[in-house]
Amino acid sequence: MHSFWNPEGISGRTLAPGVTAKIASGEKMMLSLVTLAPNAVVPTHSHPHEQMGFMVSGTLELTIEGETRVLSGNDMYLVPGGVPHAAKGGPGGAVALEAFSPPREEYR
Amino acid sequence: MHSFWNPEGISGRTLAPGVTAKIASGEKMMLSLVTLAPNAVVPTHSHPHEQMGFMVSGTLELTIEGETRVLSGNDMYLVPGGVPHAAKGGPGGAVALEAFSPPREEYR
Repeated sequence: MHSFWNPEGISGRTLAPGVTAKIASGEKMMLSLVTLAPNAVVPTHSHPHEQMGFMVSGTLELTIEGETRVLSGNDMYLVPGGVPHAAKGGPGGAVALEAFSPPREEYR
Repeated sequence: MHSFWNPEGISGRTLAPGVTAKIASGEKMMLSLVTLAPNAVVPTHSHPHEQMGFMVSGTLELTIEGETRVLSGNDMYLVPGGVPHAAKGGPGGAVALEAFSPPREEYR
């Protein structure tokens, strides 16, 4: 069945201190609207799910497989399944829209 | 291999008159940053790929399975595989970030 979501109506989940996500799920994908407070950190981790992301606002310091980039504007990125990655919100924080495939069952 | 993309460096593809997309692909998903000119129309169509979307700016009149909503803000939506859908840019146009799984081979 199709769905429409207004993020105002989705409860935020805390992923790490200063990092919250609003999640919408399909069958093959999950969208996660992630907000990072200034300098908030997502420690290095990995998961078998493929992850792609899109910058909505602010700046994000993203490290994938040891390569660090400062993302801004509408930059996009790909984290293949199983690859270690970490993130840190910029001095003004960051908002990113992330997609996972398959959906992460722990966030449904 | 991981990837980073700046949309400024991606050539736009014309999907319909007044509708362009900048595409980035993974293995399981494809992201498509779609810009619709004011009142630009994507006619009703369907594809087996699951589609999820996120409003970046403007307003979009989206019809899924005959249900029409006017989306704005950071609204999100799900179009299951095989379901007919259509879109029309609002009076000020629209930008949406869409995700497809699996990737649409015709857009790689």
